[in-house]
Amino acid sequence: MNQTNAGTAALGEMALGQEIVGRINALATISETPEHLTRIFLTKEHRAAAELVLGWMRAAGMHAHLDAIGNVCGRYEGEVAGAPCLMLGSHYDTVRDAGKWDGPLGLITAISCVAELNRRGKRQPFAIEVTGFADEEGVRFASTLLGSRAVAGTFDESVLNARDENGVSMREALRAFGLDPDHIGAAARVRRELLAYLELHIEQGPVLEQEHLPVGVVTAIAGATRMAARLTGMAGHAGTVPMASRRDALTGAAECIGAVEEFCRSDTSGLVGTVGYIHAMPGATNVIPGQVSFTIDIRAPTDAHRRLAVTDIVRRIEAIAKRRKLSLQLDVTHENRTAPCAPWLQAQIADAISAEGFRVFALPSGAGHDGMAMIDIADIGMIFVRCRGGISHHPDEHVELADADAGARVLLRVIGNFSPRERT
Amino acid sequence: MNQTNAGTAALGEMALGQEIVGRINALATISETPEHLTRIFLTKEHRAAAELVLGWMRAAGMHAHLDAIGNVCGRYEGEVAGAPCLMLGSHYDTVRDAGKWDGPLGLITAISCVAELNRRGKRQPFAIEVTGFADEEGVRFASTLLGSRAVAGTFDESVLNARDENGVSMREALRAFGLDPDHIGAAARVRRELLAYLELHIEQGPVLEQEHLPVGVVTAIAGATRMAARLTGMAGHAGTVPMASRRDALTGAAECIGAVEEFCRSDTSGLVGTVGYIHAMPGATNVIPGQVSFTIDIRAPTDAHRRLAVTDIVRRIEAIAKRRKLSLQLDVTHENRTAPCAPWLQAQIADAISAEGFRVFALPSGAGHDGMAMIDIADIGMIFVRCRGGISHHPDEHVELADADAGARVLLRVIGNFSPRERT
Repeated sequence: MNQTNAGTAALGEMALGQEIVGRINALATISETPEHLTRIFLTKEHRAAAELVLGWMRAAGMHAHLDAIGNVCGRYEGEVAGAPCLMLGSHYDTVRDAGKWDGPLGLITAISCVAELNRRGKRQPFAIEVTGFADEEGVRFASTLLGSRAVAGTFDESVLNARDENGVSMREALRAFGLDPDHIGAAARVRRELLAYLELHIEQGPVLEQEHLPVGVVTAIAGATRMAARLTGMAGHAGTVPMASRRDALTGAAECIGAVEEFCRSDTSGLVGTVGYIHAMPGATNVIPGQVSFTIDIRAPTDAHRRLAVTDIVRRIEAIAKRRKLSLQLDVTHENRTAPCAPWLQAQIADAISAEGFRVFALPSGAGHDGMAMIDIADIGMIFVRCRGGISHHPDEHVELADADAGARVLLRVIGNFSPRERT
Repeated sequence: MNQTNAGTAALGEMALGQEIVGRINALATISETPEHLTRIFLTKEHRAAAELVLGWMRAAGMHAHLDAIGNVCGRYEGEVAGAPCLMLGSHYDTVRDAGKWDGPLGLITAISCVAELNRRGKRQPFAIEVTGFADEEGVRFASTLLGSRAVAGTFDESVLNARDENGVSMREALRAFGLDPDHIGAAARVRRELLAYLELHIEQGPVLEQEHLPVGVVTAIAGATRMAARLTGMAGHAGTVPMASRRDALTGAAECIGAVEEFCRSDTSGLVGTVGYIHAMPGATNVIPGQVSFTIDIRAPTDAHRRLAVTDIVRRIEAIAKRRKLSLQLDVTHENRTAPCAPWLQAQIADAISAEGFRVFALPSGAGHDGMAMIDIADIGMIFVRCRGGISHHPDEHVELADADAGARVLLRVIGNFSPRERT
C-alpha cells in the first residue's frame, strides 16, 4: 500500500479546491433568508441541503441515504464489500447569520476526495463513508452534536421533548420532516464498523494564519468548563458612599475578570479563559452596583489541566469576594471533557501534511466538533484549515481557494495512505 | 436677638418629630401606585401633594400659593411686612419606587418650624419663606432641578420641548396642569429678596450613621463629572483565540474599573468614583467581547480637586487602552460644578448643632440638591439628617423619629438665631 505520491499526480492545478469552493457557494445559497446564511435542523433548508449533498455523494460513486436523525450518509465500498470504514465527516447546519465554511468545508472536501478516487477507479482495502451531520450547532433545540450523537449511539432521548422558539418539539419536527422519533436508534453505528473518524474543519482561530500555514494537525478538542458567577454587595448612591464604605459588586467582578485573564495568560500550555457576559445591577450611572452576574469559560487541551485551572481560578475568585465582603454564588453550568485526537491518526495526518510540502504544526481545537461525540465509537483525528483572521460564526468567515485545495490534498493523501490501527 | 435657648423650651418630648413623621406618612400616601411611592411632576399626584402642603403652610400661619412651575411657596412675614426672607426648602417629587424622606423631610420640617414660631406668636426681623420644589429628581423630563431653577431664574426654556415617555411635552403638561408655559419666568426670585437659602435633607449616605450622629453640617454639594467610555477590541471564539492574540474589550474595561477604584481609594479628600453601568457585546458566554461600554461618575468636594482627578483617571484609561491595543471613545456626558455652602451659614448651623448637644460634624454632600440651583441667587446652607444604612432612592429609606426631631430642633434654632450676613 505504498501510494505516497499517487494521490495528487492526476489532479490539475487547484482542481479539488475549485470544485470545493464552487460547492461551498452552491450550498450557501440554501438559507432561511437570502441576506444571511442560516440553515437550521429539520427545516425545508435542511431538506434542500440534504438533497444537494446526497446528489454530490452519488455522483462521487457512493451509495447515499438520509439516516434516522437527518444526517446524510454516503458509502464508497472498498476492495471487498461490507468492510469496516474510514468515516469522514462534518456538519451541514449553521448558526444564524453564519459563515459558509464552518462544517460544509469538511463535508464537501470529503466528498471531493471520494469523487477523485472514484474518477481514478481506485478502491481501498477499507470502505470510506462520508457523514454530513444534521445538527452540530444546536441552534434550534439548544442541544449540540445531535447528528453525531445519534451516530455514536449516545443521543439523549429526553431532548425529543425540547421545544424550539415557536413551541415545536423536536419530536414533532422530526415527524414533520418525515422521520420517526421512535427510531433514532437506527442511526447508531458500532465500534467494529469504524476504523477511525476523521474530520477536516476550518480552524475558527488565528493560529495557522499567524504561523503562515494552510493546514494543521489537531491534538485534541479541548474540554470546556463554563461557570456562572454572581457577586452581591450593597448598592448605594455614587455620590454619598465613601470609597472605604463600599461593597461594590462591579469593582469586585472587575478584579475577578482580571484574575481570570492573568491566570490564563501566565499559562504556557494552551489554557484559555473568557468572561463573555456581564450584567451589573441596577445598572445606573449614579448607583454603585449591588449585584453583578458574569460567566467564565475555561478550556485547556487536557482535562487534568483544565480541572486544575478551574480549581485555582475558583479559589482566587473566592478570595477576592471574601476580601471585598461580597457574597459569591459560583456554579458550573456546563462541562465537556477533552476529546484527544488519537496519536496514530495525528501521525498519519502529519505525514500527509509533510508530504504535501507543508511544515507540520500541531494545535488543539478550542471549539467543539462532532469528534467529541464520535470518540465514543472510534478513534478520532482532525485536520484544520486556515481561515482569514480567525473569524468564524460570522459572514466574514473566509477560506482561500488555495487553502481549501491544500486541505483536500492532505485529506486525499491521508485516505490514500491510511493504515488502520491494529485492533488489540 | 439672643434667643439661643428660647427655641425648644416650649416643645414637648419629640413634638416636632411626631408631627413631621406623621406628615411624612400622610404625604407618602399620595402616589401613582399604592404599592410603590412614585410622585411625578405635573401629575394628579403632584396636584394632590401640593394641596396638602399648601394646607399645612396656611395652618402654620403662612400665605401660600403655587408658583408658575408648580412649586408650593409659603411666606411667614417678619416683624415688618415685605422684608427680605430666609428661604427654607426642599423638593416634594420623588424617583420611582422611592423612599418617603428624600425631599419631603426638609419641606415638612421647615413648615413645622414655622408652625412652632407661629404657635409662639414669634416674628423675626426677616421673613421666612418655605418652598417645596415641584421637580428636583427629573424623572419625567430627564432634566433635574426644574423647580429650583425656575426660582433661581435659570430655567432653560428649551426643556419645555422635552417629552416624557408618553410623548407629552413639558409645555403640554404644564398647560394640562393649569400653568402657563410662557410665564415660568414669573417664578423667578432675585438676590435682594433672599438673605440665604437653607435646606434640611437626609444624608443619603452612611457617614452620619458611622459617626453615631443624628445631624451634620454640609460643607458643599459636590460637583460631578460623568463620562461614557467605549472600548473596542476584537470579538472572537472563547476557545480558539490564544490569550496572547486577544484584544478583549472586557478585560480592558475591568482594568479601567480597577484603576478608577484604586485612584479614588488612594485619595483622602472625599473623592469618589463609580462605574455603575457596563455592557459587553456580543455578550455570549463563549465569545470574547469585542466592545464594552461603561460609565464613570467622579465627584469631589471642590471643582479643582474633581478636575484634577478626572484628568488623571482619563490619562490612566487612555494608557490601558493603548497598551491593550483597544480603541477608546471617552466623552464627558454631564458636568456639575461644586456648590459650596457659605462658611457663615455653616458656622450658624454648627452653633445650633452644638447648642442642641450634638458633636459638630461637617461633611460634603455627594448627591445633588436644589441648593445647586439656588446658589445662583443666594448663599446656601444645608443640614443633613442621618438615614438608616445610608439607603436612599429605595423603599427601605428610613429616618428615626428622634433624628427627625433632632433635625427640626437644629433648624428651629438656626432660624431663631439667624443673623444675616452683612451685605457688602
